[in-house]
Amino acid sequence: MVDIATRVWNHRWKIDPIVRSLVDTDFYKLLMCQSVFRNKPDTQVTFSLINRSKSIRLAELIDEGELREQLDHIRSLSLTRGESTWLRGNMFYGKRQMFTPEFMEWFEALRLPPYHLEKRDGQYELTFEGKWPEVMLWEIPALAVLMELRGRAVLDHMGRFELQVLYARALTKLWEKIEHLRTIDGLRLADFGTRRRHSYLWQDKAVQALIEGLGNKFVGTSNCHIAMKRDIEAIGTNAHELPMVYAALADSDAELAQAPYQVMADWHEEHDGNLRIILPDTYGTPGFLERAPDWLAGWTGIRVDSGDPATGAETAIRWWHDRGEDPRDKLVIFSDGLDVDKIAELQAQFAGRVRVSFGWGTLLTNDFRGLTDGDALAPFSMVCKAVSANGRPTVKLSDNPEKAMGPEDQIARYKRVFGVGDQKRMEVVV
Amino acid sequence: MVDIATRVWNHRWKIDPIVRSLVDTDFYKLLMCQSVFRNKPDTQVTFSLINRSKSIRLAELIDEGELREQLDHIRSLSLTRGESTWLRGNMFYGKRQMFTPEFMEWFEALRLPPYHLEKRDGQYELTFEGKWPEVMLWEIPALAVLMELRGRAVLDHMGRFELQVLYARALTKLWEKIEHLRTIDGLRLADFGTRRRHSYLWQDKAVQALIEGLGNKFVGTSNCHIAMKRDIEAIGTNAHELPMVYAALADSDAELAQAPYQVMADWHEEHDGNLRIILPDTYGTPGFLERAPDWLAGWTGIRVDSGDPATGAETAIRWWHDRGEDPRDKLVIFSDGLDVDKIAELQAQFAGRVRVSFGWGTLLTNDFRGLTDGDALAPFSMVCKAVSANGRPTVKLSDNPEKAMGPEDQIARYKRVFGVGDQKRMEVVV
Repeated sequence: MVDIATRVWNHRWKIDPIVRSLVDTDFYKLLMCQSVFRNKPDTQVTFSLINRSKSIRLAELIDEGELREQLDHIRSLSLTRGESTWLRGNMFYGKRQMFTPEFMEWFEALRLPPYHLEKRDGQYELTFEGKWPEVMLWEIPALAVLMELRGRAVLDHMGRFELQVLYARALTKLWEKIEHLRTIDGLRLADFGTRRRHSYLWQDKAVQALIEGLGNKFVGTSNCHIAMKRDIEAIGTNAHELPMVYAALADSDAELAQAPYQVMADWHEEHDGNLRIILPDTYGTPGFLERAPDWLAGWTGIRVDSGDPATGAETAIRWWHDRGEDPRDKLVIFSDGLDVDKIAELQAQFAGRVRVSFGWGTLLTNDFRGLTDGDALAPFSMVCKAVSANGRPTVKLSDNPEKAMGPEDQIARYKRVFGVGDQKRMEVVV
Repeated sequence: MVDIATRVWNHRWKIDPIVRSLVDTDFYKLLMCQSVFRNKPDTQVTFSLINRSKSIRLAELIDEGELREQLDHIRSLSLTRGESTWLRGNMFYGKRQMFTPEFMEWFEALRLPPYHLEKRDGQYELTFEGKWPEVMLWEIPALAVLMELRGRAVLDHMGRFELQVLYARALTKLWEKIEHLRTIDGLRLADFGTRRRHSYLWQDKAVQALIEGLGNKFVGTSNCHIAMKRDIEAIGTNAHELPMVYAALADSDAELAQAPYQVMADWHEEHDGNLRIILPDTYGTPGFLERAPDWLAGWTGIRVDSGDPATGAETAIRWWHDRGEDPRDKLVIFSDGLDVDKIAELQAQFAGRVRVSFGWGTLLTNDFRGLTDGDALAPFSMVCKAVSANGRPTVKLSDNPEKAMGPEDQIARYKRVFGVGDQKRMEVVV
């Protein structure tokens, strides 16, 4: 029996929307949004798309009209009743009412603010300006739309069986990774792959594969919509945008030096347990830890998101030792450019010395490398970052100078203020 | 939207039938059936399942109740109006009304006769007795049911993603074969894989892959139901059961020696063009050709179905030369245990010297080798053959003694009558 009603319904879509929900975003975005909504609601911020992979000429691959349609569709979204119920009623990290009634009321009324789109030199200039808690929610859907539209441009030219075989190969590749991971004792791994995923459906499939293949070694997903749909844990804490904007708002070098700790202080007040995770690399991990107040050493763990991950973890372990904490009680979350071999290596190196966890991103949800001619579906390095706050440029130094951003004079100033010396350059794949 | 009606409908099936149509069978079965219906309608024949792969203990793998359910379901089938219309109205090999009104009326009224099933030594003894035109139609569905039930017994223990990955791997494997085949100039290839297919759906998928991947290098399928569904050519001519039964009916050695040519004479009267394909190996190819009447050299081509295929083709080419025919006008159809490398090799060796065509069977529709633990889904060598006719045992010698069958004294007699000497043993994989 052909289901005519479904067919008619499906054909009524004018476009095939890439992002269909405001909670199809990373959980930490909502946590940070609530924090910003409470602490810095009126800060004017600009987010901007940054394609680090210059050889991928997005404006030549993606039709501007289609991109606008997708972005316009996102602006038409608002929180559904079911999504609101899930956010209000769910237990996150063992805590109920993670989101306050004030925040939820604001979120329920929210529509995303306008975007600004231009083509330049084969790339899209895509920016979002407005109040921080509003524009910050553009980051994840904007990235997901661009990555998926670029994928669709390639898929459009493939035959029906070619498509089946493409996904068959991608699924096999994914499963072989999972078969490797399941052999790792004590593994704890979460999906962090929303922003640069191949597509929503593919991320959802990857999560289902992790559920079946890893059992309780899989601890959850950063994607709220998929966490809701698959009834699993939503995972995440905080990101670089907090210290970057706090730092940009500083009126003096002294305030600047304190800004990253002010972020942590605000967060400390709002959250405990697994949400107290330090992200130390925004202006260099060694200096950040060295100058950190003692109460920060009491936090649950640290997220290693740039530089050599083993070096980052060893730095953290030494720091906890120095501050009289037992590293074996501490959590280290690796989340930078991971794939199975690196995960196995880090687990072997650190299991037993600290509690280890992995946030597996793009190479979980978008490892289409080697599956098409000219590798046209390989993921690439694209971010969407806060580039200014109240008219001042933001700066990120990172533990890998390839990931640094900001005007040169400001980078120099930040390096001086945070005492950052030579850093090791590492290629950024995704 | 959930389609509740479809769901309810699907759940109403008491079993999941493996064979759902009387035309889910090989086209040559119907051609031969019409010939038998005309020439030997009352011959009493017994068909029997023969599992050449003794290590596969089918009676331990397949539940007897399930097997009976499937076979009983096949007995409930009759030709549908649409199937009858297709057989009556379609053009086969450029000819309309391939099937006579008398045959179609008989076929429309047909239900398959009873089966006899017993377990012995871990194997099933499955036999079909009755009038030749009726019991002969059991061969293909019986084999398909056994192969698919054995597969289901393995699949039942697999997780949802394991299943997805299994089919992803099988599809990738199939597509890589097709990508290899599409590079072969002048290739002409048909699907001959009904009897030992993984499943109906998988055979149908393989055919769709061939349509997309090979274009007009793919010339059709032996499966009538799939030919009808996909609107492509149904392919096939005749098989060993004709000479085997004709030979068993012979009342003297002299008649026996003539029996294979009598088959060809009856066929010659009924068919022309691409249907005049010699199958010479039943009692040894060299002797058959040597003693063949001259009119047989005028036939369109030859099918090489046992022994070393290159040797068989060279023998045929020499024979055509000797009989004053130009081999370049003749068709050689290779159909024994083919896979891509062998196809490429034979095409390279014979293209230009004869017209070459391939009937690709089990390693097209059931190459699940290497995809499961213990290779539990690998295809194996199982046939369903006429073992007696009017109370006399049948004999097959073949060009490969591994494929010979019949009582020993009769094999000796046939070897003497047909002048078959030493033969080369070749492993039978599928």
